Amino acid sequence: MQNSSSQSEFEIIRRHFAESGLGFQRSGVELGIGDDAALLDICSDKLLALSMDVLVADIHFPASAEPSQIANRALAVNLSDLAAMAAEPFCFTLGLVLPCSDDSWLKKFSEGLRPLAVQHNCPLVGGDISKGPLSISIQVQGLCSKSQPLLRSGAGVGDKIYVSGTVGDGAIALLALGLDSHLGNQFQFSIEKPADTCQQFFEDAYYQPSPRIDLALAAGKYFSSCIDISDGLYGDLQHILEASKVAGQLCLDKIPYSASALCCVNDENRLMAALYGGDDYELCFTVPAESCADLERVANQIGVRVSCIGEIVAGRGINCIDAKGSLRNFESFSFQHFNYRVPG
Amino acid sequence: MQNSSSQSEFEIIRRHFAESGLGFQRSGVELGIGDDAALLDICSDKLLALSMDVLVADIHFPASAEPSQIANRALAVNLSDLAAMAAEPFCFTLGLVLPCSDDSWLKKFSEGLRPLAVQHNCPLVGGDISKGPLSISIQVQGLCSKSQPLLRSGAGVGDKIYVSGTVGDGAIALLALGLDSHLGNQFQFSIEKPADTCQQFFEDAYYQPSPRIDLALAAGKYFSSCIDISDGLYGDLQHILEASKVAGQLCLDKIPYSASALCCVNDENRLMAALYGGDDYELCFTVPAESCADLERVANQIGVRVSCIGEIVAGRGINCIDAKGSLRNFESFSFQHFNYRVPG
Repeated sequence: MQNSSSQSEFEIIRRHFAESGLGFQRSGVELGIGDDAALLDICSDKLLALSMDVLVADIHFPASAEPSQIANRALAVNLSDLAAMAAEPFCFTLGLVLPCSDDSWLKKFSEGLRPLAVQHNCPLVGGDISKGPLSISIQVQGLCSKSQPLLRSGAGVGDKIYVSGTVGDGAIALLALGLDSHLGNQFQFSIEKPADTCQQFFEDAYYQPSPRIDLALAAGKYFSSCIDISDGLYGDLQHILEASKVAGQLCLDKIPYSASALCCVNDENRLMAALYGGDDYELCFTVPAESCADLERVANQIGVRVSCIGEIVAGRGINCIDAKGSLRNFESFSFQHFNYRVPG
Repeated sequence: MQNSSSQSEFEIIRRHFAESGLGFQRSGVELGIGDDAALLDICSDKLLALSMDVLVADIHFPASAEPSQIANRALAVNLSDLAAMAAEPFCFTLGLVLPCSDDSWLKKFSEGLRPLAVQHNCPLVGGDISKGPLSISIQVQGLCSKSQPLLRSGAGVGDKIYVSGTVGDGAIALLALGLDSHLGNQFQFSIEKPADTCQQFFEDAYYQPSPRIDLALAAGKYFSSCIDISDGLYGDLQHILEASKVAGQLCLDKIPYSASALCCVNDENRLMAALYGGDDYELCFTVPAESCADLERVANQIGVRVSCIGEIVAGRGINCIDAKGSLRNFESFSFQHFNYRVPG
């Protein structure tokens, strides 16, 4: 970013956030940007879901990336947490730390937030802006059912384990973008260079993940538990199993991959990417056997791929079964910000 | 911070936040730390107030400061925003960016959050932790009256302008702590070195500001508008006047100073500190003339000093009147993170 113009904090907020079309009106937001706090009116039959994610330059995104892409990704990963609770997006707040004020950067950043905000009727209602090393804190607020909130802890023995979309693409995208991966030196493309369509697919997977809000709102009533895949399928499924005090049987050959992942990465690395890569922002969820047909029908209606990848069983931990029915042993090493580990 | 031990993100959250006594139960918090989002049940007669402040190392606090002091300050400045809305603290979320995981630092930081959280029945309900340059994003949630929310925009002609406590101490504290001030080279102590009691007073003013929650909850019903003084009395009062579309007459000789400020800083610098220093976290508010006696009685009952420093008049802007009744001209240059200016 270049310090091309000197602007006050208030001027930045006014120009790029309050008056940029991000702080649009919606029902329930009684007061948005401009006072000491935003004020929300919550329907008495709803719970308010809150989730905060902090994205740090050169940890969660390259500082040199297009500001609109950074913005889109930052909001998408937060909306993904609301999807995991089957919560309808309500509004968001933004804590932006910037090395200096750059009008052009701020304009693109603000514009990058708008499509997802508008699509999900989720206006910006407040936040803070400060000088410092580039980072983005977003807190999303959502509304969910008071009678039947969707938690990680609801998985029961016999429930089927599902995943939305395809997994592993977030980790493979790091290779495509030339960024560091915590999956180690063995984690490489199996071809010299991805085709242009694959390259574009991976870039989009990284910067424009689609939070699965539509699936969660349409079919969440069939889920017994849910989590979003931000740290890798293995680690995130483990969170469901631990919270629900059950075990999971994971059929490795049922894990859904994108055509680009199938094309560019060998079997073993694709599996590593899916299990331990993270950054997929798909949903992993469980469904009681009697609701699976309903789930698949609704998912099909809204055009979202869902794949049954296993089953909840009694006990603790994850049993990974390969195509031949043999048990495979894996260590747990999903993405953890203070403890990168390479597959053993 | 020393990287004295390698811990995962989940382990840090569990040890230092979920199980540290910070995530205590309170009515209305249906789900706290541990799922994709926290879940809140809001009384139907209340509005939810949201406010986020980001504190960046070496901008808002010295990176080398005691972690418990950093933590206390970070939560206090956020609670101060709730006080400005006369909102009762409800819960908070924390986005913590740390260069590395240090058990001892994290323990002290977590302990530093606890006193204010417990005092105001405001548990930690979620957040995020990541590797990166030290910064702290806190979002506070509060509950306020649906029938009569307290905004900046309610000041009316004839209302009296009040301030709680004393002002200028936040800026003078920077001198006491040897930190940079945006008030320029002329801004200095008038004595060689503050006495120990004064030094301690300024350190406490910086690291342990008292958010004026008690005053706001007890007497907020008498306020027609309110803001907290984070950027300096001049700039913050200006926000009230602009939002309310009125002018203010500010009696400079009525501005309340601490004994330590009177002892260590000359008249002109004390005035600069009060008007343009910021970081005081006192409340500036307006009260209709007929409610002033009630306000002063309630403030006296709870032991909080309040001072009438002026009056709302028709027009725009701030008229500063000195002890002789003469108009003094000041430029507006309150604390703004991207545009430090020195008094002209």
